[in-house]
Amino acid sequence: MTVQDARTPAVDQNTGQGEREPGWHKGYVEGSRPDLRVPVRQVHLTNGRDVTLYDTSGPYTDPTIVTDVRRGLAPLRENWIIARGDTEEYAGRPARPEDDGIKHTAPRGGLRNLDAVFPGRPRQPRRGRAGQAVTQLAYARRGEITPEMEYVAIRENVSPEVVREEIAAGRAVMPVNVNHPEIEPMIIGKRFLVKVNANIGNSAVTSSIEEEVEKMTWATRWGADTVMDLSTGRNIHTTREWVLRNSPVPIGTVPLYQALEKVDGKAEELSWEIYKDTVIEQAEQGVDYMTVHAGVLLRYVPLTARRKTGIVSRGGSIMAAWCLAHHKESFLYENFEELCEILAAYDVTYSLGDGLRPGSIADANDEAQFAELRTLGELNRIAKRFQVQTMIEGPGHVPMHKIKENIDLQQEICEEAPFYTLGPLTTDVAPAYDHITSGIGAAMIAWWGTAMLCYVTPKEHLGLPNRDDVKTGVITYKIAAHAADLAKGHPGAQEWDDALSDARFEFRWEDQFNLALDPDTAREFHDETLPAEPAKTAHFCSMCGPKFCSMKISQDIRRQHGESQQEIEDGMAEKSREFAQAGNRVYLPIAD
Amino acid sequence: MTVQDARTPAVDQNTGQGEREPGWHKGYVEGSRPDLRVPVRQVHLTNGRDVTLYDTSGPYTDPTIVTDVRRGLAPLRENWIIARGDTEEYAGRPARPEDDGIKHTAPRGGLRNLDAVFPGRPRQPRRGRAGQAVTQLAYARRGEITPEMEYVAIRENVSPEVVREEIAAGRAVMPVNVNHPEIEPMIIGKRFLVKVNANIGNSAVTSSIEEEVEKMTWATRWGADTVMDLSTGRNIHTTREWVLRNSPVPIGTVPLYQALEKVDGKAEELSWEIYKDTVIEQAEQGVDYMTVHAGVLLRYVPLTARRKTGIVSRGGSIMAAWCLAHHKESFLYENFEELCEILAAYDVTYSLGDGLRPGSIADANDEAQFAELRTLGELNRIAKRFQVQTMIEGPGHVPMHKIKENIDLQQEICEEAPFYTLGPLTTDVAPAYDHITSGIGAAMIAWWGTAMLCYVTPKEHLGLPNRDDVKTGVITYKIAAHAADLAKGHPGAQEWDDALSDARFEFRWEDQFNLALDPDTAREFHDETLPAEPAKTAHFCSMCGPKFCSMKISQDIRRQHGESQQEIEDGMAEKSREFAQAGNRVYLPIAD
Repeated sequence: MTVQDARTPAVDQNTGQGEREPGWHKGYVEGSRPDLRVPVRQVHLTNGRDVTLYDTSGPYTDPTIVTDVRRGLAPLRENWIIARGDTEEYAGRPARPEDDGIKHTAPRGGLRNLDAVFPGRPRQPRRGRAGQAVTQLAYARRGEITPEMEYVAIRENVSPEVVREEIAAGRAVMPVNVNHPEIEPMIIGKRFLVKVNANIGNSAVTSSIEEEVEKMTWATRWGADTVMDLSTGRNIHTTREWVLRNSPVPIGTVPLYQALEKVDGKAEELSWEIYKDTVIEQAEQGVDYMTVHAGVLLRYVPLTARRKTGIVSRGGSIMAAWCLAHHKESFLYENFEELCEILAAYDVTYSLGDGLRPGSIADANDEAQFAELRTLGELNRIAKRFQVQTMIEGPGHVPMHKIKENIDLQQEICEEAPFYTLGPLTTDVAPAYDHITSGIGAAMIAWWGTAMLCYVTPKEHLGLPNRDDVKTGVITYKIAAHAADLAKGHPGAQEWDDALSDARFEFRWEDQFNLALDPDTAREFHDETLPAEPAKTAHFCSMCGPKFCSMKISQDIRRQHGESQQEIEDGMAEKSREFAQAGNRVYLPIAD
Repeated sequence: MTVQDARTPAVDQNTGQGEREPGWHKGYVEGSRPDLRVPVRQVHLTNGRDVTLYDTSGPYTDPTIVTDVRRGLAPLRENWIIARGDTEEYAGRPARPEDDGIKHTAPRGGLRNLDAVFPGRPRQPRRGRAGQAVTQLAYARRGEITPEMEYVAIRENVSPEVVREEIAAGRAVMPVNVNHPEIEPMIIGKRFLVKVNANIGNSAVTSSIEEEVEKMTWATRWGADTVMDLSTGRNIHTTREWVLRNSPVPIGTVPLYQALEKVDGKAEELSWEIYKDTVIEQAEQGVDYMTVHAGVLLRYVPLTARRKTGIVSRGGSIMAAWCLAHHKESFLYENFEELCEILAAYDVTYSLGDGLRPGSIADANDEAQFAELRTLGELNRIAKRFQVQTMIEGPGHVPMHKIKENIDLQQEICEEAPFYTLGPLTTDVAPAYDHITSGIGAAMIAWWGTAMLCYVTPKEHLGLPNRDDVKTGVITYKIAAHAADLAKGHPGAQEWDDALSDARFEFRWEDQFNLALDPDTAREFHDETLPAEPAKTAHFCSMCGPKFCSMKISQDIRRQHGESQQEIEDGMAEKSREFAQAGNRVYLPIAD
């Protein structure tokens, strides 16, 4: 594997001073064509070796690239999309004040924050010619290996054919809207590394556009593989435009939230026309995957009445309210095939929402939840018929002993479509720590086959996450995802742990920090107890002090038996043989 | 169950102002005798109901009790111990300067910090008459139900006979040294609530006696069921005295650490005499359980040479170094029966240490680890013969797919003796977040049968935990323990979750906070986004805002179907029947 190093000569390579990311450098693995360069995180160890890690941080961590949030990222996939010749640019749906939550009755433009309009290059939306499916699923089924497939194959260290097969079988999705050419392709499926989604989004109560863009780049810097923009307040359209144009990762949304804004929050006034218009608006902007709560059927709503916490999914409760108000099946379920045609024309991936997921331990795995799951299985089959990539959302709040049933049933009912779960939270009693209550469930369900985990921050159930909460949520979920990669035996996953453990055993403190999921906090915690620079090369640490360091004693033991690893092994093996030959008697001296 | 309320009249019962612990009150459940009062945490909900939770915080949270760390806690078990008539007071081992790490060559008293000597009531140590076993195991086997057994039966909400049976069978231990009468008895066993241990301890590098006592009360305030004092620096003896006299929970130690201090850190100079003297010193002080690394056999040491991280247990590495230096089996293994006699005379519980536990993912479940486990099984049988209560320590660093093998093998080899594990950490790549990497493993292994979890703080591998780290570690492990209690179906465990979820659904914010594992942080996080007092009664929260609140919509749905729970159920059931009778057709209107 050839890795290009994006370090600039201006950087002091000894100290790392002057770099954007001290301790590691952006590198690229080149594919079969010059415009196919896959970013990696190169950690240079003090023993001269390199460790190459998956990198989600986008061009922001490449010191050779000048980024400007007002211009957006370079459209790296644009030529690949154009070269396929199956899409066309078109005038698109005109932007309307209500897209940003401006009331119909307000003077035109009067309430719009003009500064907020995205100032980057003008663009026309693109879609499949004559409504044909321009999805990676369609290409994979035809046997085509797209540049996107090759890209993720390099990222995942598998062959492109494996990527194609998994997508063709519906066991993996690659959310890549043709209108989001800035994306660095990634794949979601149980054969691949477990992925993490971070939610951002302003709400009716607080936060601004700038904060949301910043949250997105911040989340991807710490390892978020996709970002969902769940904005519900003002400037929804414009916020999303800024986020998309600056996002190197797939962006997901719940179009229902914006549609509801357009009818002033009155669920019963929602209609297929308003919803469809919103989906097209978002698809033209480049949203890569959309949560659609089409599985909330009228007959399932009564099943939630006896629940402890009713319906806790926003989308689910909106659709339930609509169904009851109209006394009929939801417009999402009724028009699902037409929705498939729209999504196929942009390669928007379905994330079939679990509107009836349990919101408490008491409600886990109940009739309402599994009834909806069976409907999602039905919708998955329809989506596949339209060649739309599809994943399935899962809970929620589930005690540990009921988690496995969730993934097993989902895999069976939804024909192994990728499962995308929120946690699950394994207890309800720890608000302010729900990143942990859910991180436990997330690690377990990912080990058993969940392909992507939606993060939960410490603010879950309590408030809106700030910058620190986003980071804590992402790091917690990267832990859960990596723990699952290890447990699944994902090729290469353990190399990372091994490199860090080697550094730990050899007291290479700087290497430990730089290999850590969060180098900054690891370094800070170490320095709190032993701040001096020499402590970072000390052959002990602050927990035990020099006399009691077990690793130091272990090393001394090794030294007693020869200096090199081979000598140790030979010597130890010899001693073991002697011992066995002498009848495995306990008190036989074996050392020296 | 009669619960006495320890609230003082001075407390404003509406606002909770003036209490030590706002939002909940100390209560007591009375047993069969007036001096048997089991503390509970009474959470008074705004709907008039009470929720009773397990309480580890000791007299410190009882506003009717004046505590003074310089005098220590009241010896509540003293009369029970005396009444049994099988122990006697004796002069005890005289304290020596080296007990506190004062060098032999230093002028007597010259280096001792006189202020640090514990100023409380003078006491003589107590032990079993004529060396007889005065252990709860011995009593249980004889069919006796001690006041301690009744106490924990009330705490665990089971019958005293269940407690006796589990102890008699060796499936549970109750660490209660006859010299620690201040203790509030608790039980460790898989039939009971999963317990959490917090480590404290000054080291050669930093920290003071006062800090250690404060860490102990702080840890128990957040839910630590036992505390291990792992001090290795100066004033070990005196620190332990302060901690014991003020501790309402069992205190564990690793006597080897202090023994090593007495020989200036030179492992090869350790001897059975020095070790035995240290064990008696600590047993006389009242240490309730001791980690003993007697399973590290000479022939196992070579098995660690090929490991990625060698031996990571301090005790394990000290014993390995000793074995190699002397070319013979360890003095712990050789003198194990004599050690059993000593422990039995004080009712000190064994915690058989896993000196060869894996320190990295790469080393998990290897030959060295399981060889030692088999020896621990052998030692467990010996200890039981001497009527010494015994638990077994477990790892360490273990990927998720290898965790279950650990508990299954331990239960088989050690005849269901309680397993007491450190995590395990499920990945090595997240220093600064090892409370989370290990909280995942801890929850899983506890679900599968581990009886007590040793906490890991965010500072693990990096430095000494401060006050915040201790709290974070305890809360994380209380989450893991409670998640396991739920998964095991422990009677009553889910009531807590249900109470909190009811409060959540009904927007009783204050009740949510007060029922939370950490009310302070939950309240603080809520107030960050919506600080105003009315927000705490608002029927929405800051995540979704008023228009989008799914719980509010759920409640509206319920209201459409009748006000009372019974009406909802009747109405919904009726609608379900109508729907089914009409052939389960999707488009049949069911609402109204």
